[in-house]
Amino acid sequence: MKTPAPPPCPFEKLHPSELQRDDAYFMQLAYNQAIDAWRADEVPVGAIVARDSEVIARAHNQVVTTGDPTAHAETIALSQAAAAIGDWRLNDAVLFATKEPCPMCSGAAVMARIGRVVYGVPDPKMGCLGGAANLNTLPHSNHRFPVTGGVLLEECRALLQAYFAAKRTTPIA
Amino acid sequence: MKTPAPPPCPFEKLHPSELQRDDAYFMQLAYNQAIDAWRADEVPVGAIVARDSEVIARAHNQVVTTGDPTAHAETIALSQAAAAIGDWRLNDAVLFATKEPCPMCSGAAVMARIGRVVYGVPDPKMGCLGGAANLNTLPHSNHRFPVTGGVLLEECRALLQAYFAAKRTTPIA
Repeated sequence: MKTPAPPPCPFEKLHPSELQRDDAYFMQLAYNQAIDAWRADEVPVGAIVARDSEVIARAHNQVVTTGDPTAHAETIALSQAAAAIGDWRLNDAVLFATKEPCPMCSGAAVMARIGRVVYGVPDPKMGCLGGAANLNTLPHSNHRFPVTGGVLLEECRALLQAYFAAKRTTPIA
Repeated sequence: MKTPAPPPCPFEKLHPSELQRDDAYFMQLAYNQAIDAWRADEVPVGAIVARDSEVIARAHNQVVTTGDPTAHAETIALSQAAAAIGDWRLNDAVLFATKEPCPMCSGAAVMARIGRVVYGVPDPKMGCLGGAANLNTLPHSNHRFPVTGGVLLEECRALLQAYFAAKRTTPIA
């Protein structure tokens, strides 16, 4: 059986100014990672980890490509970030993800002691930073972090919606 | 600064009969992985993934050794299991863990569509299969699995308690 080519991605990467390194800046970089995911025919989610206004990790969803159910953008980025700073504790780092992290990735942010999480699209179905559950408020957890949702929301949502729509209409080759 | 040697592990590995491959059998193998974790000076948690009564993955906690906050026994075992069967969907497989999985690992079991989870010690503080939260019952999740806790409970708990007690009294070299 021939694997069908991924549906062409109708969105272009963004080119934010390097001069203003705010949440929107880093989320645009995460969005660019999500475009890379689409181009690899993966659900288009991207993630960035930043520390001191510098990117220390960037990744996109790779579940299908690697055949690994744990290979989400966020877990890969958290692993890379820990390697980059030589410490598995990421208290000084911020995770940017184009979608509210899933149960696994929300939990990974807790276990990595992330300093803060910023996400694009809320996910009331599977998001676990307030959407379907909130792993950031376990009563006896020794780590909590500020969460900001809705950054670059429309762009991140359009990308996901367009990908799923395209997949539904792609004929099997 | 010299890294202190790990406290010596006072427990021996178990040697279950191969003839009866029940939950206790696989949990004893997970326990043996937890002993390997202690010997590497990691929090002693071990995991096994089995399918059709065969072990397809075995791993122990490696957070400190690898410097990777996502390198828990369960996530590593789930990744290995997916590689072993060539599919990231583990519907036919069972995850055995010596401790109730944490937020990340409980979520990983959901995302991997695991067939069933069996654990040793409940964790009311951080366990997320009924302890501190339950990621197996998200209202809109498209995957749920049977969970059995308390298998080989006393042995798995004694190992964890002894490790933490030993760490508290180990002088810094």
